[in-house]
Amino acid sequence: MSSEAANEDCLGWAARDASGVLSPYNFSRRALGNEDVYIKITHCGICYADVVWTRNKHGDSKYPLVPGHEIAGIVQKVGSQVQRFNVGDHVGVGTYVNSCRDCQYCNDGLEVHCMKGSVYTFNGVDYDGTITKGGYSSYIVVHERYCFTIPKNYPLASAAPLLCAGVTVYAPMVRHKMNQPGKSLGVIGLGGLGHMAVKFGKAFGLNVTVFSSSISKKEEALSVLGADKFVLSSDQQEMMALAKSLDFIVDTASGDHPFDPYMALLKTSGVLVLVGFPSEVKFSPANLNLGMRTVSGSVTGGTKETQEMINFCAANGIHPNIEVIPIDYANEALQRVINRDVKYRFVIDIENSLKQN
Amino acid sequence: MSSEAANEDCLGWAARDASGVLSPYNFSRRALGNEDVYIKITHCGICYADVVWTRNKHGDSKYPLVPGHEIAGIVQKVGSQVQRFNVGDHVGVGTYVNSCRDCQYCNDGLEVHCMKGSVYTFNGVDYDGTITKGGYSSYIVVHERYCFTIPKNYPLASAAPLLCAGVTVYAPMVRHKMNQPGKSLGVIGLGGLGHMAVKFGKAFGLNVTVFSSSISKKEEALSVLGADKFVLSSDQQEMMALAKSLDFIVDTASGDHPFDPYMALLKTSGVLVLVGFPSEVKFSPANLNLGMRTVSGSVTGGTKETQEMINFCAANGIHPNIEVIPIDYANEALQRVINRDVKYRFVIDIENSLKQN
Repeated sequence: MSSEAANEDCLGWAARDASGVLSPYNFSRRALGNEDVYIKITHCGICYADVVWTRNKHGDSKYPLVPGHEIAGIVQKVGSQVQRFNVGDHVGVGTYVNSCRDCQYCNDGLEVHCMKGSVYTFNGVDYDGTITKGGYSSYIVVHERYCFTIPKNYPLASAAPLLCAGVTVYAPMVRHKMNQPGKSLGVIGLGGLGHMAVKFGKAFGLNVTVFSSSISKKEEALSVLGADKFVLSSDQQEMMALAKSLDFIVDTASGDHPFDPYMALLKTSGVLVLVGFPSEVKFSPANLNLGMRTVSGSVTGGTKETQEMINFCAANGIHPNIEVIPIDYANEALQRVINRDVKYRFVIDIENSLKQN
Repeated sequence: MSSEAANEDCLGWAARDASGVLSPYNFSRRALGNEDVYIKITHCGICYADVVWTRNKHGDSKYPLVPGHEIAGIVQKVGSQVQRFNVGDHVGVGTYVNSCRDCQYCNDGLEVHCMKGSVYTFNGVDYDGTITKGGYSSYIVVHERYCFTIPKNYPLASAAPLLCAGVTVYAPMVRHKMNQPGKSLGVIGLGGLGHMAVKFGKAFGLNVTVFSSSISKKEEALSVLGADKFVLSSDQQEMMALAKSLDFIVDTASGDHPFDPYMALLKTSGVLVLVGFPSEVKFSPANLNLGMRTVSGSVTGGTKETQEMINFCAANGIHPNIEVIPIDYANEALQRVINRDVKYRFVIDIENSLKQN
């Protein structure tokens, strides 16, 4: 490790234990490699994953833990062999920062499914043995393969949530051909992922119905996000009126919920894509088989899909709805994420609020 | 109804009540319409559906009930406007005998998914209000659209099980592109459907692994059916050794079984097709999402897929393994189907055993 790396010149906010409470933390990043990009982080989105790992909900958290995998910033240095980026470029980093770069999935631009395992952006063990640290920090050093170009006309604050929330719904929607104008889409859950699914659905020319357990989301779903229809999922009559009417469903709900009532809304050959993580998926085979229906899962997206999604958002003026906050507010923001009290994504203004004390 | 139809000249075996016991029964079929084919039935396969409805397991059985929807026979008369068939042709009839012929699914050759509802071959209510009666009978009158050509070089007895068991596995296998040589297929359950999935898998050039809860199936799976590998599903070590190794799984098991151990065997983007009807489908979202996997359901196939499957079997010498029985043995055979004591399909020799008493 170079003396530069040993400087502990990276400022971050880290959780120290399962309380998940974040506080300032100085640490080292690796020295810039030949194919690395050094990114001054301007913004980082807050994802539910930040709650999961700061609070050790999977039992594998490695403290001190610097969360954050929706990273946007500006290139400050590039390694000697970097091809795609120059100093001053606006770039993003998503949920993974390394992979074997040699397996069939890496070769297909699906690095997140790397056969040797992709390395997550924080709390991951990198190939050199270091524990990765995320975007609640002043800068990051990343191999250029895992960096994405953010067009200069697209705000960096808006770009941050695209790197996880955006691609997580965009990738399966395109993979399952949900970009056919005139078709019908149901979106279950209206959080960070769900609100992006509505926006993508409308941009694809779909007729979008939002399903939510909370009537409080109705007005906003229709007037702010532009959904065509809102259905309170507990309203059995309204649910049944939509039987066999949807081509697709994107299920972003992470809370436990029944699947059969939604499966029954799909047309023959209809597809439900699950991107949330309820405790289980359970349904009647009749609802699957008789309608030749499909349930498919997805998690984030590959580098190819991610860049395509960013370009699509820039070209079509799609912006996540965000609440920009200073880093000092991060602990309260994480609590509000737990309480589902956010419309629809917090973005930390790293550039203007993360300073050496 | 014509006087011909009123003759009760069709001999069948019918269940009279939920005991499911079959006994001889004379009834009428409709008079030959312009687009109808009159088929002398030579063979009828025994499907588990025959158990379900003779015994009123769904509570909707209409007695007297003549079961049978794996019908093979010879054309004896054709209506004046019949285009595709001539007297003497060998033909088959499967699980449905009518549909609206006007919706998008009918137009796509997916009549079983007809928006107005396809009419099942027995215990169905036809568009004219009559209750359909199946193939445990001397002849049947069917609109030519729902009849299939059986090449003369293909035995009629072998053809019968193709009409349900065969197409039920063939259609989703082709739909999900399981016909790519060199890929790997798992088959769960080795009954009427499962043994056909193995045969199709081998004909498609796949590496086929059979999963069964009964070690007694091992020898036959490998040496008679030609599977490449047999795994006892209770052998956790062998199961885990196959983690992420299969491109596809065809799940034909109708008994309740866990899904997670099989989902974990699928590669990234792997597809499990369910054609059985356990009481529920239940798995962890992690096993779906992290591997971008798909669970898809299917039930029988459309007319286009059915004819394609018959032609494929004739061209590739694929024959179901059958036990040919006389109609007098039907009650015992149904009991043996309940006991899963058949390798792998009973076919009733209607032509030589169903006689007027």
